[in-house]
Amino acid sequence: MSLAQRILDGDLRAAARLMRDLDDGLRSAAGEMKLLYPNTGRAFILGITGPPGAGKSTLVDQLTAAYRRQGKRVGVVAIDPTSPFTGGAILGDRIRMNRHAEDPGVFIRSLATRGHMGGLSRSTGDVVNVMDAMGMDVVIIETVGVGQDEIDIVRMAHTTVVVSVPGLGDDIQAIKAGILEIGDLFVVNKADRDGADRTARELAAMLEMKQIKAGEWQPKVLLTEASRNRGLDEMVAEIEAHRSYLVDSGALELLMKERCAQQFIDLLRERLFTEVYGHIRINGRFREIVDEMSARRTDPYSAVETVIAERFAGAQTTSS
Amino acid sequence: MSLAQRILDGDLRAAARLMRDLDDGLRSAAGEMKLLYPNTGRAFILGITGPPGAGKSTLVDQLTAAYRRQGKRVGVVAIDPTSPFTGGAILGDRIRMNRHAEDPGVFIRSLATRGHMGGLSRSTGDVVNVMDAMGMDVVIIETVGVGQDEIDIVRMAHTTVVVSVPGLGDDIQAIKAGILEIGDLFVVNKADRDGADRTARELAAMLEMKQIKAGEWQPKVLLTEASRNRGLDEMVAEIEAHRSYLVDSGALELLMKERCAQQFIDLLRERLFTEVYGHIRINGRFREIVDEMSARRTDPYSAVETVIAERFAGAQTTSS
Repeated sequence: MSLAQRILDGDLRAAARLMRDLDDGLRSAAGEMKLLYPNTGRAFILGITGPPGAGKSTLVDQLTAAYRRQGKRVGVVAIDPTSPFTGGAILGDRIRMNRHAEDPGVFIRSLATRGHMGGLSRSTGDVVNVMDAMGMDVVIIETVGVGQDEIDIVRMAHTTVVVSVPGLGDDIQAIKAGILEIGDLFVVNKADRDGADRTARELAAMLEMKQIKAGEWQPKVLLTEASRNRGLDEMVAEIEAHRSYLVDSGALELLMKERCAQQFIDLLRERLFTEVYGHIRINGRFREIVDEMSARRTDPYSAVETVIAERFAGAQTTSS
Repeated sequence: MSLAQRILDGDLRAAARLMRDLDDGLRSAAGEMKLLYPNTGRAFILGITGPPGAGKSTLVDQLTAAYRRQGKRVGVVAIDPTSPFTGGAILGDRIRMNRHAEDPGVFIRSLATRGHMGGLSRSTGDVVNVMDAMGMDVVIIETVGVGQDEIDIVRMAHTTVVVSVPGLGDDIQAIKAGILEIGDLFVVNKADRDGADRTARELAAMLEMKQIKAGEWQPKVLLTEASRNRGLDEMVAEIEAHRSYLVDSGALELLMKERCAQQFIDLLRERLFTEVYGHIRINGRFREIVDEMSARRTDPYSAVETVIAERFAGAQTTSS
């Protein structure tokens, strides 16, 4: 039986196996994804982003528990910052959400920000699709909101929660200003700390400056204390309110269409490159070009034009 | 006269114009880059990275002044964090290094982390190449060391300085551990602050664990106070020591070759995608595919395979 069929039948190990195969770039994995795709498009995708130390993992853990109490199945994709050289995730599945470890209604996958063939955004999309096909009602994508990659990923979500924390420096606030636009809901976590109310007021004031039109979604600012499970009910309710808004306004359909476009584009970019680069690495052209560039006998622009022309001409020769 | 020739003749406005043309993705810009390329490969490329608030801009300003006193011409490429939606850089050329504004031996260019056709790494490489061809002796690339993109960029450098600052939280230190491997020199700036010595000792201890072999470069940890120009002489000397090491050990040649390979790869990836994507957007195939995907009548993997097959077949038909 295919991995895809086993996944559709509820086999969690088959899902974990396919995710590893995708990571390893196995050709067979693409075939499995084709089989799964008709069963996607049902999950609600929730993005959680914020700076390191904002308590996102605890918040996701509590959210997961809340959805489980509603009888919903929950997938979690945690994007972990990586060492650029060792390739290992700094945080891993091991230390995450042990209390859900035995629950077959929860499936957790950590992705390191390095080592994904063809980009993190594509890998994340694949994992979300597998979880969606598995029948997860909610898929939570958790990222550290520091890099552009991570922000692009969280934008795959239907609803995005930006998590803040009292007492961050001004510089970090300046960077965070950039993610003000992506939040559908703002949460100031660790609300027992000094300055939580001030941080919440500042966020609310910044949001007011956005001048949201009548009928458009108005993001709220909530206070939470995830470690004590405080404020979670309000958070779940507000996420649900946003989801209803998306459905009623027709925005959800648009979002889902945009996600289709993005998945196609990410994969096209990767496949085109892999195909041509693989070809010139094997036949020695790549090494030749680098040597010529080093000697300044050619330049990258001319070399790329030549390779593209050759590759298209090559397709002609071999097929005619 | 071509822009390239004017740049080689020392026309700074022509250089600024070409950089804008590159940003705008003008076809003519590639032609100018071809003409400039034989004149590249001479500049020393220095990368400066670190967290927001570490005082990198002030440090770069002081370094620039130090190199100017040595009679060297200096190019600066500052990668600024951007709002993902507005597209504007948070910090701009305007507020940078006003004291060098009238000095024709200094050329400064800010790049926002958004809106670069084909990736920030490729754009940065182009700007470095233009500055190199202009005859800049040193090109400084300054990035905020938070995202993977920024770390990739600073790795273009021959020598990389990682700037630290006392009193950052543990979480930020954890992320920073990832950039421990990329530093050839570590600087603890704002050394007048409490805890500077401790931060320096911790960094030194972490570096010792790396067990560097005899004959390999041993990164040092220096204390600076850029705003008062303290520690800058030692920093310049240590950068020079690393450069000598690179030249003597043959590592510089390898680094330069790797940079050639990376430039070619970045450009190949971009051009292949732009060519095929441009084609299917114009002929309506792209919209068709997204509609089919939305209806779950096709999947991204099958759609990409079809498009690649069509495009190669198309090349055959039109040229035979």
